[in-house]
Amino acid sequence: MSYARQMLDTYPRTLSVDAGVLAGTVDALSDCAQACTADVAADLSEQNVTEMVRCIRLCLDCTDICTATLGVLSRQAEYDASVTRPLLEACAAICRSCGDECERHARMHEHCRICREACRRCEQACRDLLEAVK
Amino acid sequence: MSYARQMLDTYPRTLSVDAGVLAGTVDALSDCAQACTADVAADLSEQNVTEMVRCIRLCLDCTDICTATLGVLSRQAEYDASVTRPLLEACAAICRSCGDECERHARMHEHCRICREACRRCEQACRDLLEAVK
Amino acid sequence: MSYARQMLDTYPRTLSVDAGVLAGTVDALSDCAQACTADVAADLSEQNVTEMVRCIRLCLDCTDICTATLGVLSRQAEYDASVTRPLLEACAAICRSCGDECERHARMHEHCRICREACRRCEQACRDLLEAVK
Amino acid sequence: MSYARQMLDTYPRTLSVDAGVLAGTVDALSDCAQACTADVAADLSEQNVTEMVRCIRLCLDCTDICTATLGVLSRQAEYDASVTRPLLEACAAICRSCGDECERHARMHEHCRICREACRRCEQACRDLLEAVK
Repeated sequence: MSYARQMLDTYPRTLSVDAGVLAGTVDALSDCAQACTADVAADLSEQNVTEMVRCIRLCLDCTDICTATLGVLSRQAEYDASVTRPLLEACAAICRSCGDECERHARMHEHCRICREACRRCEQACRDLLEAVK
Repeated sequence: MSYARQMLDTYPRTLSVDAGVLAGTVDALSDCAQACTADVAADLSEQNVTEMVRCIRLCLDCTDICTATLGVLSRQAEYDASVTRPLLEACAAICRSCGDECERHARMHEHCRICREACRRCEQACRDLLEAVK
Repeated sequence: MSYARQMLDTYPRTLSVDAGVLAGTVDALSDCAQACTADVAADLSEQNVTEMVRCIRLCLDCTDICTATLGVLSRQAEYDASVTRPLLEACAAICRSCGDECERHARMHEHCRICREACRRCEQACRDLLEAVK
Repeated sequence: MSYARQMLDTYPRTLSVDAGVLAGTVDALSDCAQACTADVAADLSEQNVTEMVRCIRLCLDCTDICTATLGVLSRQAEYDASVTRPLLEACAAICRSCGDECERHARMHEHCRICREACRRCEQACRDLLEAVK
């Protein structure tokens, strides 16, 4: 069981969404931020770094937005749709773009294939949560 | 002249928005993130910390979202409305909520008054940029 | 297998340390940052928040330092002992302090017990890596 | 007067170091993190990106470490030498390395010249604070 799930199970207040859905999103955000940080490092070590510039930029954006979303979801006691909804939308959108770009390099670079997978899972988790809080 | 403005003036590509507007937003985001971090620290040192809990949570959210928005705007070469627009909307919304909460404590706590000011300026800067990129 | 390990296994360069040790540290840092963020949220929801102030502060420090260390270790291609060693020392020290503080609340608050566990594992992982790069 | 200074002047507790020295360090850290983030963006937009890879990596490390140090210094009420000293040492060391690398590109790229300046000021500020808390 992930730390996210363990922590949510001990949360001293009632959650506004299902703990399983929320924990799944938190884990997906954490994995995606980590995969994107590692993918930037790997991209910078490739010989054809010029071709990886767009991938690096999108991975940096994706790390930043996933990290912020992770923090906000962890403090969900003050759930505020006017903040959380556009943030989840921004997060799903950058995961989509970043996953698409990683897809383009997936056959050439195994690290991009793994990062694409993390982005796809995270995009889906954000969309599931957007549905759940509707 | 701020570092943000100096850096944007030397940017090797054409920007999609006016450099002055963008630099103003970057500075406002950086100030707001810093003010909110300092306000959390000050809130935690107050005797009536129980009354400051909501302020602390909103300041933490505000720091996280401002920091992410700052990073994304700094890499604006790949401007993507599907990411940047909801992110700026989330940022304006949390600056609004956090500024409103700081407002409630402004007469009692000078640090909340200063933080409110930083939140208000940042909210306006995000809305101005949303207008500029329309 | 964690994303950290998968990503390191596809890294395009030779690593300066054993991939297993490095991946273990990256995972421990990520878990600890996440547990501390969640513990802050839970502490803020407790009735006796006044007694949790020190725990909140240390968890915030621990999140910040773990996140920075995670980023630096992910870009280990430019391993530089003058940066990485003191950073790992700072990280082990904050994990120690934060773990000790969580220990004090562990019987009362299950979320602090889980967070303490994450801090202890992360402290050990940082010390193991310091040994490995000696 | 910077937000850092304003916030410190309203801090509800006695500080363990001179408010002016601390505010100067906080401002230098914030400027440096911002300059490094912008320099990464600019480096990625250069034609000779292959030659900028080391600069990009060091700027990413510098941003991460400055951001963490900024957070920890903002919560200085629990000043703990075993954490703060190695963190300031790591921060001074990465500012030194990053400043040296930016120096190499300063004549070619104005953005690296500005970033070098921010790194030099931040390195000095960290060393001054290390002296002040001795």
